[in-house]
Amino acid sequence: MSTRTAATALDEVDPLAKLRNHRGPSPGVIHLDGNSTSPAIDTAIRPRRFIEHHWARPPRGHNPFPELRGAVRDLAALLGASASELALTDSSSMNLFRALVAGAELRPGRSVLVVGRDCFPIDRYLARSAADFTGSELVLLDDLAELDEVLDERTAVVALAHVDDRSGAVRDAAGITAEIHRAGALALWDLSNSAGALHVDLGTWEADFAIGCGDKYLGGGAGAPAYHFVAERHHATERTAGTSPAGRRTSSPTLSVAGFRESLSRLGAVTSASLQNKTSSLVELFLTRLEPYRDGTAPEVLEPPKGAPRGAQVVLRHHHARYLVQGLFAHGVIVDFVEPDLLRFGFSPAWLSYVDVWEAVEALGTVLHELPAGFDPENGRS
Amino acid sequence: MSTRTAATALDEVDPLAKLRNHRGPSPGVIHLDGNSTSPAIDTAIRPRRFIEHHWARPPRGHNPFPELRGAVRDLAALLGASASELALTDSSSMNLFRALVAGAELRPGRSVLVVGRDCFPIDRYLARSAADFTGSELVLLDDLAELDEVLDERTAVVALAHVDDRSGAVRDAAGITAEIHRAGALALWDLSNSAGALHVDLGTWEADFAIGCGDKYLGGGAGAPAYHFVAERHHATERTAGTSPAGRRTSSPTLSVAGFRESLSRLGAVTSASLQNKTSSLVELFLTRLEPYRDGTAPEVLEPPKGAPRGAQVVLRHHHARYLVQGLFAHGVIVDFVEPDLLRFGFSPAWLSYVDVWEAVEALGTVLHELPAGFDPENGRS
Repeated sequence: MSTRTAATALDEVDPLAKLRNHRGPSPGVIHLDGNSTSPAIDTAIRPRRFIEHHWARPPRGHNPFPELRGAVRDLAALLGASASELALTDSSSMNLFRALVAGAELRPGRSVLVVGRDCFPIDRYLARSAADFTGSELVLLDDLAELDEVLDERTAVVALAHVDDRSGAVRDAAGITAEIHRAGALALWDLSNSAGALHVDLGTWEADFAIGCGDKYLGGGAGAPAYHFVAERHHATERTAGTSPAGRRTSSPTLSVAGFRESLSRLGAVTSASLQNKTSSLVELFLTRLEPYRDGTAPEVLEPPKGAPRGAQVVLRHHHARYLVQGLFAHGVIVDFVEPDLLRFGFSPAWLSYVDVWEAVEALGTVLHELPAGFDPENGRS
Repeated sequence: MSTRTAATALDEVDPLAKLRNHRGPSPGVIHLDGNSTSPAIDTAIRPRRFIEHHWARPPRGHNPFPELRGAVRDLAALLGASASELALTDSSSMNLFRALVAGAELRPGRSVLVVGRDCFPIDRYLARSAADFTGSELVLLDDLAELDEVLDERTAVVALAHVDDRSGAVRDAAGITAEIHRAGALALWDLSNSAGALHVDLGTWEADFAIGCGDKYLGGGAGAPAYHFVAERHHATERTAGTSPAGRRTSSPTLSVAGFRESLSRLGAVTSASLQNKTSSLVELFLTRLEPYRDGTAPEVLEPPKGAPRGAQVVLRHHHARYLVQGLFAHGVIVDFVEPDLLRFGFSPAWLSYVDVWEAVEALGTVLHELPAGFDPENGRS
């Protein structure tokens, strides 16, 4: 596993290798920045085709619904949902607001909304907004271990990220959903950091609501449309903020949907279990390859808490993290920098090869080597 | 005015002719279907450029905000707003919900939301939703003449379309806003059928809120992003459903924003007054050219009620409207059919030439001529 040849051999037998069959606009760049965009597919293909063959062609040639329906169908398959339970619309923040309000309405005698603190800051404002408009109390959950304490007969909804964005730990969504249901509350899952990389099965989990963004592992790129799941069993009684009875859809941004659909049509051809398998293998290769660099001066690998399974990301701590990120960039490897001293690597099973991961660690080794002993970032590179 | 040469002459001196300098994907087709898309600009240009030059290029090359800021700046100029008052986000239905809720919150002692019935059906659901979540009563206004009766000390917000989509009549936005303000209520304008074709000046009107879609006269095409205006004076106290304090934006669909920006960057170079002037001239040419066909069998021209000014659309009534729409399509002219017997023509000053309008009436004359006397649509074309 420690040679480039071994990585090449893994690529040769990779059943998902065909997903990478694209000509992206940035060949030679390895995208491990899960935060904003997956390795770029040539996302221009489908928007262009849509404009030329649907939009501009009369009559009623500009009907955007085939694009939308196709995208919803592929995404539903990947999430273990049915197409009628899923809407591609608005932003993930707006969809969080919507789902929290719907949850509060479905549990009228309960007045507490519990939301994991590991969501984006803007989502916390939306959660506050949902609490205000439903006359609920908002409880921000710092740690999953506190769930037991806050979960009681006053809890209407619990909103949690499937993957803790700080530690990369995967939560036991089915088990936690069951616990939430035992307390009589509803479960809302944010799939932004898992869909497209990990096994997701909203039906089996018995999730009530789910939301997520279309970028990151789903490959929809910057500003991809967001999605919104409501379990079929709630459709009759749900009365969500800002929805119509006809499928909870408002309108969707067609060009962005068309771009998103390009990657969804590839992901829709495989199972989320096979994506999860490859994610694990990529992460394992990364960690194995990193072993030789684990000494006193090399980055520390942050471990998920209490043996929770690791998702599709690895976070490294290094006191010169900012400079390492810049150095990696110079070598064509893009990772996220998290203030003050973290490097976050995201592993998208659909768009990355084993050789990509091998090369990324090779680049990290080079950059670590280039960093002179006694390097002081305040005073330049020497 | 009744010859093709005269129309050509008008095009030659048209100060807005430069806006049409585009290579759309459907040359030779005249789009008068204001409902869903303007004549197609080659909207692929900017999404493609965005993908290749911003999205795919590290580092942080996928930052979508320059696209968004550019689009907001150009749109604000066209609406008489400042960029800080405008957000390009979510769908117009969602933005209606948001603005109604914000309005209700800004007028806490008042419990009635008044909404013009001439909005899309889905918007009525969203209005109902906003009323439910704010504990307000929803009053749907059938006719502007009823405004006097419903406007009282219980009214929190009045939401109206700037242009009545049924009759094409333009409403006196400044005057009506003043009347609403005299009653202590807030004014919310839907600009979907006017922005890009008529003079709009939210600042001078003293509008409190405005919403609109990016397609129709703004040229953003099918599924273009929606927009949302909140007057500066309400920013300190506004507490809108589903917003963050940092500029009321959630995320925006970047590819669709990039497509929309392509047309906004052209529209941003002219004034809405000059757009309105050309719209009037196009409509005048259309009506003048139509005179010879105004006999017993020809379409009836629907007039706006009570001498209200006509906007950018003309509606014709004909008992074979459906067949006329199909016939026009065969001649490369796209108009909207409205059940059961109406043809709706929309005149986009930015993308249409005078010759286009001349040709459209020529095609209508041909189609009327082709329709045999005694034509029975139930039994085919003879």
